[in-house]
Amino acid sequence: MDPYDNEEFFDQYAQMRRSKEGLKGAGEWPALEHLLPDVTGMRILDLGAGYGWHAKYFVDHGAASVVAVDISNKMIATAEAKNSDPRISYQVGDISQVDFEADTFDMVFSSLAIHYLPSFSVLVNHVKHYLKPQGIFLFSVEHPIFTASGDQDFVPSGNRTVFPVDRYFDEGQRTTEFLGSQVTKYHRTLTTYLETLLTNGFAVTNVVEPTPADHLRDLPEMADEWRRPMMLIVKSQNRI
Amino acid sequence: MDPYDNEEFFDQYAQMRRSKEGLKGAGEWPALEHLLPDVTGMRILDLGAGYGWHAKYFVDHGAASVVAVDISNKMIATAEAKNSDPRISYQVGDISQVDFEADTFDMVFSSLAIHYLPSFSVLVNHVKHYLKPQGIFLFSVEHPIFTASGDQDFVPSGNRTVFPVDRYFDEGQRTTEFLGSQVTKYHRTLTTYLETLLTNGFAVTNVVEPTPADHLRDLPEMADEWRRPMMLIVKSQNRI
Repeated sequence: MDPYDNEEFFDQYAQMRRSKEGLKGAGEWPALEHLLPDVTGMRILDLGAGYGWHAKYFVDHGAASVVAVDISNKMIATAEAKNSDPRISYQVGDISQVDFEADTFDMVFSSLAIHYLPSFSVLVNHVKHYLKPQGIFLFSVEHPIFTASGDQDFVPSGNRTVFPVDRYFDEGQRTTEFLGSQVTKYHRTLTTYLETLLTNGFAVTNVVEPTPADHLRDLPEMADEWRRPMMLIVKSQNRI
Repeated sequence: MDPYDNEEFFDQYAQMRRSKEGLKGAGEWPALEHLLPDVTGMRILDLGAGYGWHAKYFVDHGAASVVAVDISNKMIATAEAKNSDPRISYQVGDISQVDFEADTFDMVFSSLAIHYLPSFSVLVNHVKHYLKPQGIFLFSVEHPIFTASGDQDFVPSGNRTVFPVDRYFDEGQRTTEFLGSQVTKYHRTLTTYLETLLTNGFAVTNVVEPTPADHLRDLPEMADEWRRPMMLIVKSQNRI
C-alpha cells in the first residue's frame, strides 16, 4: 500500500503547513511559481497531484484543463473535496505508468513526487510521448544531496551538527522515516536527472535549488534550510 | 602570492598523481574527454592551464592554436618545460580578468580553476565576449557539495564517517587545507553555476558528476569517491 494511503501517515501529512495552507505554506512555491510559463489556455498534466493545490492554481490562472494524477486514493479524494473544478480531472494512478495520446499536453508538472519512482528514464520516455513539441516539463524533487545517505537529517559530529552525505553514486532505494512512517524513496544523482533530460531531447532551461519564501524565512522550522539544499527544481522544454 | 607559486605547495602539487602522470592520472579525465568536441582547427582558450596537459592534448588532437593562461609563474614555467608546442601560447595572468577581442575562440576550457574565482558572473561576461557564436564553454570545478562546509573531508559521526554539508546557501570564501597549505576557494551553489550560464545566453548541454576512471577505481585513494560528488563538469554552448 502506498504510504500516502496509510491512515496514520495521511493524518500526519494533513498537519503539515503545506497541507493546511496550500501553496503559500510550501517554502519552495515562490521559486516554482517564478518558473511557471503563462498557463493561459494550456492543457496541463500534474503528476503526483496531492491535495490538488497546483491543479487548482493552474485553472484559476487560465489553464484550459488539468489532468491531475496521484497514486493515493485518499489524496485524490481530498483533492476532489478541497480543489474540485470542472476543468480538473482527478485520477488515481501510477504516475510513472499512466499514459496518454502523443502530443496531448502543453506542460507536464510534478511537485515532489518523482523521487518516489524507481526509474526517471521510464518517466521521461512517457513524458516525451504525451508532451507537445516545445512543451514544458517542470518538476521539483528532493535534492540528490538530500536523498543520498538516507538519513535526511543533520547528525552530530564533534561539537556541531552537519548534514551527512554518503553513498552518493549508489543510486536506488532509500528507506527514511517521514512523519513517523517508513517511506521508500529513490536516490538519483544530479547527473542522472539532467543527462536523462538532455539525452532525450529536452533543453534544460532552469535548475534552481529553492530557499524558503520570504514570509517563511524566520520560522524556526526553516533555520536549517540554509545549511543544505533540500529540493531541486528543473524546468525543461521538449526540443522536438 | 598565489598558493601555486608557494614553493612548498608547488612541490607537494608536483607529487600528485595528476601532476606526475598527466591526464591519465586525473580521475575525471575520461568523463571530461568524453564531452570534448572534435577540436580540429579550433582556436582554444585554456583558463587555469596548470602544467599544460590539456593544452598539449588539444594541439595533439588537431587544434589550430591554444592560449593557455595561469596565474602561477611556476605553473607556466613548468608547462613551458613539459608541454611546449609552437601552437600553444602560455601566459601568466588572472583568468577572471584576462581579455581578448570579441569572437576569438571556438572553445573556452577550464579544468579545476574556476572555484578559485570570487565571481562566476564576471568570468561568464568575459567568456561571452571572446567566445564565438555557437562556441563551447566546457569546465570542471569542485562540486558545490564539496566546497559548501569548507571541511572537504569526511568527519566522524557516531561509529561511522560522513561527508559534511553545511552553509550551502552561504556563498563566498572558504579556507581549506590542501597539500599542507591554507588555500582560499569560493563556494557557489549549483543554482549559481547553471543559472548564470542560462541567463547569459548559454545552452547547458551536459552536467556530469564524474566518478573515477576505470583504471583508477580500485586505488585506495579512490575509495571515498563513490560516497560524495567531488567535481562537477558543465558543457555549455554560446547561443548567440
